[in-house]
Amino acid sequence: MLKATPRGRRTLKASNAFRERLAASAQAIGAHMEQVLAGLPDVPMVHAMRHATQGGKRLRGFLVLEGARLHGVPVANALWPATAIEALHAYSLVHDDLPCMDDDDLRRGQPTVHRKWDEATAVLVGDALQTMAFELVSHEDTSPQPAVRADLALSLARAGGAQGMVLGQAMDIAAETAGTPLDLETITHLQRGKTGALIEWSATAGARMAGADIAPLRDYAQALGLAFQIADDILDVEGDSATVGKATGKDAEAGKATFVSLLGLEEAKRRAESLMENACEHLSGYGPEAETLRQLARFVIARKH
Amino acid sequence: MLKATPRGRRTLKASNAFRERLAASAQAIGAHMEQVLAGLPDVPMVHAMRHATQGGKRLRGFLVLEGARLHGVPVANALWPATAIEALHAYSLVHDDLPCMDDDDLRRGQPTVHRKWDEATAVLVGDALQTMAFELVSHEDTSPQPAVRADLALSLARAGGAQGMVLGQAMDIAAETAGTPLDLETITHLQRGKTGALIEWSATAGARMAGADIAPLRDYAQALGLAFQIADDILDVEGDSATVGKATGKDAEAGKATFVSLLGLEEAKRRAESLMENACEHLSGYGPEAETLRQLARFVIARKH
Repeated sequence: MLKATPRGRRTLKASNAFRERLAASAQAIGAHMEQVLAGLPDVPMVHAMRHATQGGKRLRGFLVLEGARLHGVPVANALWPATAIEALHAYSLVHDDLPCMDDDDLRRGQPTVHRKWDEATAVLVGDALQTMAFELVSHEDTSPQPAVRADLALSLARAGGAQGMVLGQAMDIAAETAGTPLDLETITHLQRGKTGALIEWSATAGARMAGADIAPLRDYAQALGLAFQIADDILDVEGDSATVGKATGKDAEAGKATFVSLLGLEEAKRRAESLMENACEHLSGYGPEAETLRQLARFVIARKH
Repeated sequence: MLKATPRGRRTLKASNAFRERLAASAQAIGAHMEQVLAGLPDVPMVHAMRHATQGGKRLRGFLVLEGARLHGVPVANALWPATAIEALHAYSLVHDDLPCMDDDDLRRGQPTVHRKWDEATAVLVGDALQTMAFELVSHEDTSPQPAVRADLALSLARAGGAQGMVLGQAMDIAAETAGTPLDLETITHLQRGKTGALIEWSATAGARMAGADIAPLRDYAQALGLAFQIADDILDVEGDSATVGKATGKDAEAGKATFVSLLGLEEAKRRAESLMENACEHLSGYGPEAETLRQLARFVIARKH
């Protein structure tokens, strides 16, 4: 994808710095997650919660930290909602992987919770991780201002619930049950709930914490979220499961409509590229400080896993 | 249980007024729940959420409303956390009833969500109801004070999560997997999480909303919660499934340790009675205004379903 032109080289160089930054953020969030989990009782379910929250790129938490940095929110505070969104994301994956849902054996290159433990544990682990997400955002250390904590809890509930992520999942299941392939408009609406709502919350959390206007980061995140999902559909076709860390080719096998099946591979790639550019445009008001978020948009459509 | 003595008659009379009050509260919470659900998209999952939240005595919501009344919190505000705790309780029942958990076909005299719909829907319905609970407590209409909304969200997360309700469920499953019957101390600890934590939250929510001391209602609720669980174990032995609205005799059949199996039926009844009296003692500071909560304690150990 990158050509050996001066521009290409700059992008590559920036990309390396970006990857280091992303890795450092993932590590900081992982350490905070471990600190929170270490405070819980020593029961098998908590070990399974640890397993479910390990690994992954922690893109959502990274969005929280970067959005917070842009608004001058201390990282010590921002780590709480960053860890919260990763806990919420992990809960959705654990439940999604259940036999009655997507029935997946592999997640982030590791056995899924219901494979390593059992289904009952997986149900409870997901439940507990969701609860933990709300505990973390409403925790006193997230913000000294109660209004911020209440706003984060309310907006997270709206993003994660029956009008956001869970609605997207329910629409997905309903479509599969009905057996009628979705059209582009419906699949866009579905994905905006299923993956977009949490991405949007992540990107805007920092602005919420600072009491600033969330609109630019919200618009950025809406384009980014859709680009992310299109890239995911492309990976399901082009990636191999060892690199991606989960089963691939499942959508085509299931005859499921995806952005790739509806648009074709080339048009899907073009659409993801254009959404990435659109996402970056919304960041113009932040100037060079938002360069990391621009690189994230590029990373999202270029990633191999 | 009631004798035809003057004292007995007074209790019986009060009990009828109490039942009317409980029914009126359940109706108000049901109406509010319906209003919230009516605002959600018209998808099968939302119909299943409605099914899962219908029926029941709504004891936890009643505790919220009564605790709020004692502290002068307007009912229009208190209905939000009252509905929230019923949504959270309903989520725990839907997931508890799953085939991989208790595998129940009947709940509140109706087919369970995974029987009427399917397992995937039941997982999502539980997930969405939990999220909804946090949306309701952090909603602006719960309290004009952000500090109250943040405190309700944080305390609800602590009561519902891996140190509260879900921990109790995880301990329950771990004990069943290990196959070693629990002793009285462990079962008391387990039940304090599994049912006690939400009952405690419900009773103290009104005091939290008023910024008052939660200690008397917390102590009342701890005794009440344990009495409630002992009464539940007694019902599992003495009740018939048609009246109780769910399968009975399951604990004995599964060789599970309960308060009845550990203490014997008579001692369990004596213990429940003594806890009920203890619960009432903690209300002394509230005077006659707390009579309804005293009657609730009597109702909890005398109920037939």
